[in-house]
Amino acid sequence: MNNLLQHISRQQLDSFEQRYRAKLVNSLSGFKSANLIGTKCKAGIENLSIVSSVFHLGANPPLVGMINRPDTVRRDTLSNIKANQEFSINHVNAKIWQQAHQCSARYDKTISEFEAVGLKPQYINNFNCPFVHESEVKYGVSLIEIVDIKHNGTTMIVGEIQDIFVNEKALLDDGFIDIELLETIAVSSLDSYHLTTKLGRLAYAKPERAVTPLQGI
Amino acid sequence: MNNLLQHISRQQLDSFEQRYRAKLVNSLSGFKSANLIGTKCKAGIENLSIVSSVFHLGANPPLVGMINRPDTVRRDTLSNIKANQEFSINHVNAKIWQQAHQCSARYDKTISEFEAVGLKPQYINNFNCPFVHESEVKYGVSLIEIVDIKHNGTTMIVGEIQDIFVNEKALLDDGFIDIELLETIAVSSLDSYHLTTKLGRLAYAKPERAVTPLQGI
Repeated sequence: MNNLLQHISRQQLDSFEQRYRAKLVNSLSGFKSANLIGTKCKAGIENLSIVSSVFHLGANPPLVGMINRPDTVRRDTLSNIKANQEFSINHVNAKIWQQAHQCSARYDKTISEFEAVGLKPQYINNFNCPFVHESEVKYGVSLIEIVDIKHNGTTMIVGEIQDIFVNEKALLDDGFIDIELLETIAVSSLDSYHLTTKLGRLAYAKPERAVTPLQGI
Repeated sequence: MNNLLQHISRQQLDSFEQRYRAKLVNSLSGFKSANLIGTKCKAGIENLSIVSSVFHLGANPPLVGMINRPDTVRRDTLSNIKANQEFSINHVNAKIWQQAHQCSARYDKTISEFEAVGLKPQYINNFNCPFVHESEVKYGVSLIEIVDIKHNGTTMIVGEIQDIFVNEKALLDDGFIDIELLETIAVSSLDSYHLTTKLGRLAYAKPERAVTPLQGI
């Protein structure tokens, strides 16, 4: 075993102070997406929350998943989604990463995070929830299912992607969106934000062929 | 509406050619983690698969989730996990990103991807599944639950984190693992790999305080 490797046993992990453990375990999954979730409550107040738990669930039908923990400020988001059955997902980019982080503060539910942090709500077509004007990849999502994860009281929201809005310069000929060009950011652990630098795109892997850079895009 | 924004309606999305749609929808969630999943089948053959769908589910108990689509090569991984009730998760870093991608080729199930792509299996303590020697953040996971997502036949694997192994130079005093220092990579869409550059870490956000860089780490 490599002698630079530090071993943390489960027993040690369970004995750590709560915030230490939270930062450690949140580091383990690797880099995460950074998205702002736009919703509206029944009384019409806009809500905006930052989440690092949006993930791809399928392309056909186009589905996304999102984890909601029972102990977070995202409770407003969850209750708004239940009430209105829809929400917007908006990429966080390098121009708004600090405002996006500030959306994680526990504002009173009568306060719109848009106003509090200085982001501009945007309404497009007939979609009832606000998008983030400053975001360059965003889409409207309708609620499909809420799945309870019994082991820790977490819920997974399953949503179906409807209308998509993307800065046209980033949409390549093969359907790939160059989110790095738009300075979409990545998150690690609970509080660290990162720009990216592309190593490369690789062609579909085949057993009989060595790794091949993607050609012709 | 910003005139650089291109609108893709759901109707258009559904009409796209399959691979175009897959690359587009896979771009929408934002940056993803890149992990290698180490398993072993009943006959003892090692299996290694690359996934971009590992996500944080909770710190106490320490849980991770992972999505398995019905139509991918990860079927070997899923059946091995069901058989042995455990698996390893290993961060992909910049030294092994191309070998990691090659693990997505549909090798025959009698072939070990470790051998095929040139990565070294590593056994630590009594854990029955192979780790990736070249990975600098890795941990053993025991299966907790398999959750079916009815809408598209996908399954979510819920696992509980047991022993953790991390390059000691990356474990900071507050529990944060500096995965960027270890050149852990991020993925976008189906085939694009990225290094990262830190913008910063931010302190816990509070309504009455402006955004504050994290101090003292």
